[in-house]
Amino acid sequence: MQHSSSISGCPPAKSTPTMCSGPTKKSQLTSVKACEMSQNALETPRGEEGPGNSVYLSERGNSIRLHEGILQEGYIQYGMDRHHDTDNPDGIINMGTSENKLCYDLLHKRLTKPDMLHINPSLLQYSDWRGHAFLREAVAKFLTRYCCSPNPLKADNVVVMNGCGSLFSCIAAVICDPKDAILIPTPFYGVITEDLHLYSDVKLFHVPLDCEADGKDNRPFRLTVRKLEEGLQRAKEEGLTIRGVILMNPHNPLAEIYSLKEMITFLEFAKRNALHAIVDEVYMLTVFDESVTFQSVLSADSLPDPQRTHIMWGMSKDFAMAGIRIGTLYTENRDLVEALAKLGSFHGVSGTTQHQVAQLLQDKEWINEEFLPENRRRLKAACSYLTGELLSMGIPFLDRPATLYVWADLRKYLQESSFEEELSLWKCFLRHKVLLSCGQAFCCSVPGWFRIVFADQQHHLQLGQYQQHS
Amino acid sequence: MQHSSSISGCPPAKSTPTMCSGPTKKSQLTSVKACEMSQNALETPRGEEGPGNSVYLSERGNSIRLHEGILQEGYIQYGMDRHHDTDNPDGIINMGTSENKLCYDLLHKRLTKPDMLHINPSLLQYSDWRGHAFLREAVAKFLTRYCCSPNPLKADNVVVMNGCGSLFSCIAAVICDPKDAILIPTPFYGVITEDLHLYSDVKLFHVPLDCEADGKDNRPFRLTVRKLEEGLQRAKEEGLTIRGVILMNPHNPLAEIYSLKEMITFLEFAKRNALHAIVDEVYMLTVFDESVTFQSVLSADSLPDPQRTHIMWGMSKDFAMAGIRIGTLYTENRDLVEALAKLGSFHGVSGTTQHQVAQLLQDKEWINEEFLPENRRRLKAACSYLTGELLSMGIPFLDRPATLYVWADLRKYLQESSFEEELSLWKCFLRHKVLLSCGQAFCCSVPGWFRIVFADQQHHLQLGQYQQHS
Repeated sequence: MQHSSSISGCPPAKSTPTMCSGPTKKSQLTSVKACEMSQNALETPRGEEGPGNSVYLSERGNSIRLHEGILQEGYIQYGMDRHHDTDNPDGIINMGTSENKLCYDLLHKRLTKPDMLHINPSLLQYSDWRGHAFLREAVAKFLTRYCCSPNPLKADNVVVMNGCGSLFSCIAAVICDPKDAILIPTPFYGVITEDLHLYSDVKLFHVPLDCEADGKDNRPFRLTVRKLEEGLQRAKEEGLTIRGVILMNPHNPLAEIYSLKEMITFLEFAKRNALHAIVDEVYMLTVFDESVTFQSVLSADSLPDPQRTHIMWGMSKDFAMAGIRIGTLYTENRDLVEALAKLGSFHGVSGTTQHQVAQLLQDKEWINEEFLPENRRRLKAACSYLTGELLSMGIPFLDRPATLYVWADLRKYLQESSFEEELSLWKCFLRHKVLLSCGQAFCCSVPGWFRIVFADQQHHLQLGQYQQHS
Repeated sequence: MQHSSSISGCPPAKSTPTMCSGPTKKSQLTSVKACEMSQNALETPRGEEGPGNSVYLSERGNSIRLHEGILQEGYIQYGMDRHHDTDNPDGIINMGTSENKLCYDLLHKRLTKPDMLHINPSLLQYSDWRGHAFLREAVAKFLTRYCCSPNPLKADNVVVMNGCGSLFSCIAAVICDPKDAILIPTPFYGVITEDLHLYSDVKLFHVPLDCEADGKDNRPFRLTVRKLEEGLQRAKEEGLTIRGVILMNPHNPLAEIYSLKEMITFLEFAKRNALHAIVDEVYMLTVFDESVTFQSVLSADSLPDPQRTHIMWGMSKDFAMAGIRIGTLYTENRDLVEALAKLGSFHGVSGTTQHQVAQLLQDKEWINEEFLPENRRRLKAACSYLTGELLSMGIPFLDRPATLYVWADLRKYLQESSFEEELSLWKCFLRHKVLLSCGQAFCCSVPGWFRIVFADQQHHLQLGQYQQHS
């Protein structure tokens, strides 16, 4: 982690921005396209009650419909103008969505093998809403192995749903009443806000991590029990009912890997305060430096509060298959499992997909001999390439050998330290055809940080770098 | 529909029940098994706040967890003791779940063709939460053809989710505020209650259809605009905010097919009262008498209130694939589509499944030449077999050439006309290893009616009949 020290001290933004110099002709065209889409959307007659409100929807419906993440506009533009090497070489490069695009060839080869085309009657019929027993068994064995659990994990403790977002939504619905809240250190993967709020009306209470290094060990944005305790205290003072805490390891967007010892102290904090701990380990196999060991909390001999500790994992990141919609939960809490099963009908996964995923998870040889080593090798190369570019540009970043992105400090490009400036910089990248995620989308407390996804072909990253300078 | 007249007049239950004669030795064993399962469930330590309440869950979570449909116990027993021709020949026959088990061979043949094993990068990546464009286009073309739409339906008006239950939940969430209600004639497919309530906190307001024939045309449980108007009036008197009405055609559980003219009068009722009309046509291709024509509301030249008319269809019934988790919505209302898209991340379908379904829906030859004719032929034979048995037992039923079940009048087996007696009869069937759905699970206003699913191998239906007499 040699470069993390390069941001210690975090000097306030001073430099004049040189990367972006306002809209280009091409970006004006993009804006025209965006306007056209809005125009088309307005062509259909709508009933309006208030600004933007629809007479056809309820108050809740309007609030859901009008809910927009700060990066929404970027994804709309990207949707209309995606880069494609041959069909649209001047389109937008997406370094904003955390997807691994490096291993499609490996996945294609495996997913088109004959064992993937299996059909039996039960796959086509209604099944257990927690997931087919064969898949829950495969998940339990897989987690036992890759989380190094001292005891075999049980299929009955596994719940499978169509993505971790669904799990977040369901867990929030059953451990919280409407308006209750869950603690989360910031910055964090911002979509969790919607996961908890849209259906379940649960809030996140932010525990800001300071970007300055904490003490001698040069770990900016360091998560500590003290910060969690202080956050909980503030939440109580605000009259909120806090029902849980969300912990991510490896972290999104910091890419930080917490040791088991650290995680246990966080879980002990949760236990002391009777909080559920929702532990998100969706990047657990996306650690690409073999000298670094990730330790799942499932590797612990015992958990401080097993009835309130719930571990999430899924196929989106570690197996580069966000489109396959598989999220899994491991929990010993039978009440939680029963409650989730009641909501499971809304988050069911196709039987054929369940079969395919079970085949993959059981294929230890493919995972160990083919997919994981090659995936790690490619991620490491892509990360090195991007961080090399950042170094050459004098951009500080957290140097971590995990996840699909780096958390980079672009504060020197801000005219002043404000979130407006950060958004301007983000828009400037977009005009130059590079989609990134700015820190405010992750509720970062300090403006100027960006998450940059590197898990793409190098020539896309090159292009991105090139365009940033254009 | 020659037999529908046989129940006109609906004489009160008189006959002594002869079908069931109390628990047999085998059924006592079943009860022991059921107890064992409850015991096992209790082995894990639970925190209890009140009777059945868990300290780990919120008030809402406990309410979700403890929510039980009246038939829950039957499905638990069935889960532990499923009939299997060779492995468990004395197990429970499921004539309760509306699944078509007659066409597995046709589906297996088609679903294992090489075109089903296609993989491309976009199938493995995040996609449009309304469904991939290729699938929405396939659905639009499919519905245009099979609903006989006078104009081509548009892919932009299609939303694909993992099942119609998800669509019900989402629509309720965005057209209703919590505690608002939606009208529904009873009896109705009971699971809709949970679809609307569990996540979205929306109620159903029941409009009871009388089981007596209405006037001269011998249509028991006849849905009329007058009944809808009266229901709406009663709801208003109770201070409820009614935001919509659910209409099913063909109906579940009545299997009634409404003419387009009738449907338009219902839609005009909805328009007059500014109600959303959610039109569930999931059985539209499951009409097995070729002399009977089903007309989708999408075949109308114009809809009374197109902005408030939303049509559901899916793969579960018409393609005998409940396990593939595909529900589709067609609506011209852009606001609704936008709001549903925001909730779509919780109801996403695997890209590989979306590909498979699009392949099927585009395969006009397979649908028209292979699947539909053979499916109709088998359903017709199965229905004839079951209704023949019912006739021979003197059990009246609604004779309709559609859906996967018949709605049968078992009132003569009730000692007295009460829902307790109905439940006793249902339990008696279960002890004799036949799982049915009793009318109270569908909020039927008169006790003694049962939904009997016939879409299974004849020897299962035979066995069912045999066991009923044992």
